[in-house]
Amino acid sequence: MPESTPRPRPLTDLGPEELTAFRQEQQTAYDALRGRGLSLDLTRGKPSSAQLDLSERLLSLPDGTRDAHGVDVRNYGGLEGIRELREMFADLLGVEPAQLVAGGSSSLVMMREVLTDLWLKGAVDGVRPWSEEEKVTFICPVPGYDRHFTLLSWFGIDTVTVPMDEHGPDVEAVAALAAADPSIKGMWVVPTYANPTGSVVTQEVAARLATMETAAPDFKIFWDNAYALHHLTEDEAKTADVLSLAAAAGHPHRPIMFASTSKITFAGAGVAFLGGSVENVAWYVGHLGKGSIGPDKVNQLRHAQFFGSPEGVRDHMRQHRAIIAPKFAAVDEVLTSRLEGLGVATWTRPSGGYFVSLDVLDGTAGRVVELAREAGVALTPAGASFPGGHDPDDRNIRLAPTFPELPEVREAMDAVATCVALAAAEKLSH
Amino acid sequence: MPESTPRPRPLTDLGPEELTAFRQEQQTAYDALRGRGLSLDLTRGKPSSAQLDLSERLLSLPDGTRDAHGVDVRNYGGLEGIRELREMFADLLGVEPAQLVAGGSSSLVMMREVLTDLWLKGAVDGVRPWSEEEKVTFICPVPGYDRHFTLLSWFGIDTVTVPMDEHGPDVEAVAALAAADPSIKGMWVVPTYANPTGSVVTQEVAARLATMETAAPDFKIFWDNAYALHHLTEDEAKTADVLSLAAAAGHPHRPIMFASTSKITFAGAGVAFLGGSVENVAWYVGHLGKGSIGPDKVNQLRHAQFFGSPEGVRDHMRQHRAIIAPKFAAVDEVLTSRLEGLGVATWTRPSGGYFVSLDVLDGTAGRVVELAREAGVALTPAGASFPGGHDPDDRNIRLAPTFPELPEVREAMDAVATCVALAAAEKLSH
Repeated sequence: MPESTPRPRPLTDLGPEELTAFRQEQQTAYDALRGRGLSLDLTRGKPSSAQLDLSERLLSLPDGTRDAHGVDVRNYGGLEGIRELREMFADLLGVEPAQLVAGGSSSLVMMREVLTDLWLKGAVDGVRPWSEEEKVTFICPVPGYDRHFTLLSWFGIDTVTVPMDEHGPDVEAVAALAAADPSIKGMWVVPTYANPTGSVVTQEVAARLATMETAAPDFKIFWDNAYALHHLTEDEAKTADVLSLAAAAGHPHRPIMFASTSKITFAGAGVAFLGGSVENVAWYVGHLGKGSIGPDKVNQLRHAQFFGSPEGVRDHMRQHRAIIAPKFAAVDEVLTSRLEGLGVATWTRPSGGYFVSLDVLDGTAGRVVELAREAGVALTPAGASFPGGHDPDDRNIRLAPTFPELPEVREAMDAVATCVALAAAEKLSH
Repeated sequence: MPESTPRPRPLTDLGPEELTAFRQEQQTAYDALRGRGLSLDLTRGKPSSAQLDLSERLLSLPDGTRDAHGVDVRNYGGLEGIRELREMFADLLGVEPAQLVAGGSSSLVMMREVLTDLWLKGAVDGVRPWSEEEKVTFICPVPGYDRHFTLLSWFGIDTVTVPMDEHGPDVEAVAALAAADPSIKGMWVVPTYANPTGSVVTQEVAARLATMETAAPDFKIFWDNAYALHHLTEDEAKTADVLSLAAAAGHPHRPIMFASTSKITFAGAGVAFLGGSVENVAWYVGHLGKGSIGPDKVNQLRHAQFFGSPEGVRDHMRQHRAIIAPKFAAVDEVLTSRLEGLGVATWTRPSGGYFVSLDVLDGTAGRVVELAREAGVALTPAGASFPGGHDPDDRNIRLAPTFPELPEVREAMDAVATCVALAAAEKLSH
């Protein structure tokens, strides 16, 4: 090895005096940080202005007001969405157009609608509404998406966690739970570039989820493919075709897929999609029609014209990648240069999606977030990636580097690294 | 009286031979009608293309992507909607901006959301979720809006009807029901230019609804002000201020107001509003936030820029009036010339809204709709304006003259008049 900066040693290997010196060093860095009056925000997975600008042409679309089939998109009707946009995204999401609904601007709203329908009416393959069950429980891979957990909690649905690893949920743990307990009615999966780990569900894991025996006949996989097309490298992950796998296994109604253009065009003004068996789609649209006359088809036509084709969407995503991949690289660079070898943090290097999952020394995540906040760097609350906001190890922090500009990402990550190191030194000093 | 066409005599005054002759005359007219191969549709309250064209400029808005307060409307957030649009419609709807939420494109969806929240969580002033009540009943003024009834039925909410007269619901009947039965949790009211009667709730009726004692502490008035600004004459009705009346009476959380631009701009791509006490608004937004990150603010900014001001909305509505008032006049003209004096039909002459309510000879509404269908004129199914689609008198037909072009409206109404007269003659011949 060439002579250079000495390789950092794990903090746990340091003697008391060395640790005190390290802690003092970090405290000094932290005090300097506080003096700088930062105001940086890594809390939410929001596209940056530059990303939103990629879709500027949407603001002056659509040209004309009829879809390819002659429907006046301005008027009422068309619960399932306009066909050309459904066809385009059916191609991208690997389903048949008849299996896909194009809705309003939010897939989260669609998830709530599906839960409401399950709650009040029951599933296509169910025997009663979920509200009439003594207990309903969902399997939640963790770390996961806080809004998924909030939604369950709103319905009074219990949660049981399984670990999320690089291949997706711990599928043996899932299968054991689902087989044993009929109150376990479903699970969340973010199959591609999961929030926050960046994991991609492998073909094998998807197949196991699709084929496993479940005690509940109406077990549902909420397959939230929010980042299906959100690659950060040339190695573009292909989402497993869970609908076909489930259908082949005799469980066609098990998966319900969600996706949207929220992080493709405008976060608040995109188009959301729901996919599933033809029966699930009819079930969803049937219930939807009791309280809706149709989605915003003007916005759907706007999107169809903007993209032009599935390839148009893929091209557009490459432009996103050019903007955000450097930010993810910066997160990794700064964390590596500041924390590697200290034995107090590991983090993901996602090849897609919107997040980096940072695991710090057990018992210090809350402290890191607190230190960062006091230094003007807003992080997602520690524990947010767990149901009830409770990370039993107080270890996980979700980093969202897309929204700030690149220099801010570096600055924020440097600050975070200081907080991680300081919190670890504090902890180990006790 | 000058000599002219003999004044028509009520069919019930005709002798058997005269009636037979009249029936034969109508049958001949009807047969001729069938031979013409009409294809006309008066079923739904949809704006016509010419009306939709009034908002064409929306298609190339917004200019810029920040609202008046600097918020980037393209990104996530802002559950309650952008302030400038809330301020504009608060003015138009006679509420404070803090009492108004701007949402997605559908007020019907907001109604479903409110019912879902009441069902699963209970009201601000309630003691338990409505799903935990033994029974929940809504008072439904009839004739009324079919989608309101469908929504109730979806939740399993019972209905009890009261007559709708020209001043609004029969308020004494409402008050008696609400006072007597704690299962009666709410009611529908379309206060301005009601669907389908065109009635406008008077100040007195609104005050009685706002102040009446109700056995249920969490009684809710679903105040669906869909046609608040949809005048057909210069005599523009002003909606009673039910929120203030209810607040003054000590029932601030009783009314929840709904409105939208569906019949102002684009039927499928407008902006919907929910109004209520500040506590009701917080309750709604709080629940909304469990399954939504915010509405389509781009579309809200688009609307705010398009209108410019409350007066801009009023001006715009006058352009609608210029297009549709002649259609309503045509309905009245044709019905008058064909049916007046026969004693087999009465109809409303609304000064606003989207519908004419036609009452035919008892027991013939279904037959009229059937005859019309066979002659190529689609009418809303008889009974649609009643819960469960059941009109106990088989009397009411809702006419929606806005969508067809003016000559088609005349043609369709002439056909309808023939069907009404024929059905009546058939009925009286038996």
